[in-house]
Amino acid sequence: MRFTSQTSSDAIVEQLFLLGDIPGVLWSPQGADGTRPLIAMGHGGGEHKKAPDVTDLAHRFVTECGFAVVAIDAPSHGDRPDHEEFTRIATEYEARLDAAEELAPLIADFQALVGRQIVPEWQRVLTAVQKLGHVGTGPIGYWGVSLGCVIGVPLTAAEPRIRAAVLGLGGAEVPCEAAARITVPVEFLMQWDDERVPRAQSLALFDAFASTEKTLHANPGKHGGVPAFETDSTLRFFERHLG
Amino acid sequence: MRFTSQTSSDAIVEQLFLLGDIPGVLWSPQGADGTRPLIAMGHGGGEHKKAPDVTDLAHRFVTECGFAVVAIDAPSHGDRPDHEEFTRIATEYEARLDAAEELAPLIADFQALVGRQIVPEWQRVLTAVQKLGHVGTGPIGYWGVSLGCVIGVPLTAAEPRIRAAVLGLGGAEVPCEAAARITVPVEFLMQWDDERVPRAQSLALFDAFASTEKTLHANPGKHGGVPAFETDSTLRFFERHLG
Repeated sequence: MRFTSQTSSDAIVEQLFLLGDIPGVLWSPQGADGTRPLIAMGHGGGEHKKAPDVTDLAHRFVTECGFAVVAIDAPSHGDRPDHEEFTRIATEYEARLDAAEELAPLIADFQALVGRQIVPEWQRVLTAVQKLGHVGTGPIGYWGVSLGCVIGVPLTAAEPRIRAAVLGLGGAEVPCEAAARITVPVEFLMQWDDERVPRAQSLALFDAFASTEKTLHANPGKHGGVPAFETDSTLRFFERHLG
Repeated sequence: MRFTSQTSSDAIVEQLFLLGDIPGVLWSPQGADGTRPLIAMGHGGGEHKKAPDVTDLAHRFVTECGFAVVAIDAPSHGDRPDHEEFTRIATEYEARLDAAEELAPLIADFQALVGRQIVPEWQRVLTAVQKLGHVGTGPIGYWGVSLGCVIGVPLTAAEPRIRAAVLGLGGAEVPCEAAARITVPVEFLMQWDDERVPRAQSLALFDAFASTEKTLHANPGKHGGVPAFETDSTLRFFERHLG
């Protein structure tokens, strides 16, 4: 793990890093020393590790909860080069969504790619970050909606270090056996008028989680319109389960 | 409005009253003077105005938010005499629910009774309570689940003084035109495994609210099993909209 820059502002330290060829960012409280909860954040499709929604929420985790937060670029996103298969699937997905054509085969392809590459990448990142003195091996939470949910479901299912997850804006377009292996607390965000995810598929994904504590928060509006008050709820959720 | 008793404990004043033949209870902060938000609380079926869930939540509204809280007994409940029609409908409802028989005609009967008697009763109570110096004409919130939701939907639709409502554990078994007239913020509680309200009917009622801000909170478990953390969410919801 190689740090490429470090800046600090408003009592938040931001460290950019490379783990092999994976570019990431780590936020932590200024002067932090010792073990603390870590939030892993997955950005949305077409965005990157420092997209405004990721950065804003990360800052609140650091300043209000004292957590560390790590985000990485997904393949074909941010500072990463084009990933041929990822780009093919994403391009075809958008075309089929626009044409209202069947998405299931593409999603199965994407789930395979996530399992083969993206989940192991995240696991290496978590291991490396938790070796740092100001992060340590505390409990981990995962936050990710949309693309961050598609990646987050198999990651949370595979990774016992993740103790709680906020997921959402995703659905069970194909049977999602990973969701049925998730047993940690989940807060699931759904947009009631989501133009990208049919209502029944959002509800089916929520239904599939095996967690004893799972809570569905549905709000009116389209895919990108999660209301601001859900951010407060997200912070309280992770404080309750990791704090 | 005639007060029949007044006690105070833990900085909460509890006043029992009769408005005509309607028995009610008003909770307010000790030493309260001047206008404050008022929460109207509707108890569940078979319960009464001082049922533990009502009282516990009312105490939190008073001590944590500084609100006043009023609850009344529904007909055939608590300190009220038997109401022949209410009792007939409730008894037959339980029998049909046990036998998995059609409920729609009974619900239509009950909605008519609520509109004819229970909504006007609540409106008289709100008018009387808001004339008190330690309550005043501040914004009103309504809280009620199960029977409290069946009453709360038409009450919230009819009553412009109600600015926000927490409802839940109810469904749209019959088309619910009152729900479509509700435009104030609603937080709607749903139990994912509710044995009394089919999942699709809960979702249909949430869908029917015309509110721009409405949020569905669904949690695993049966009708009576709303998790404790929803209480915190309820307090924050009313603080956001009435505080």
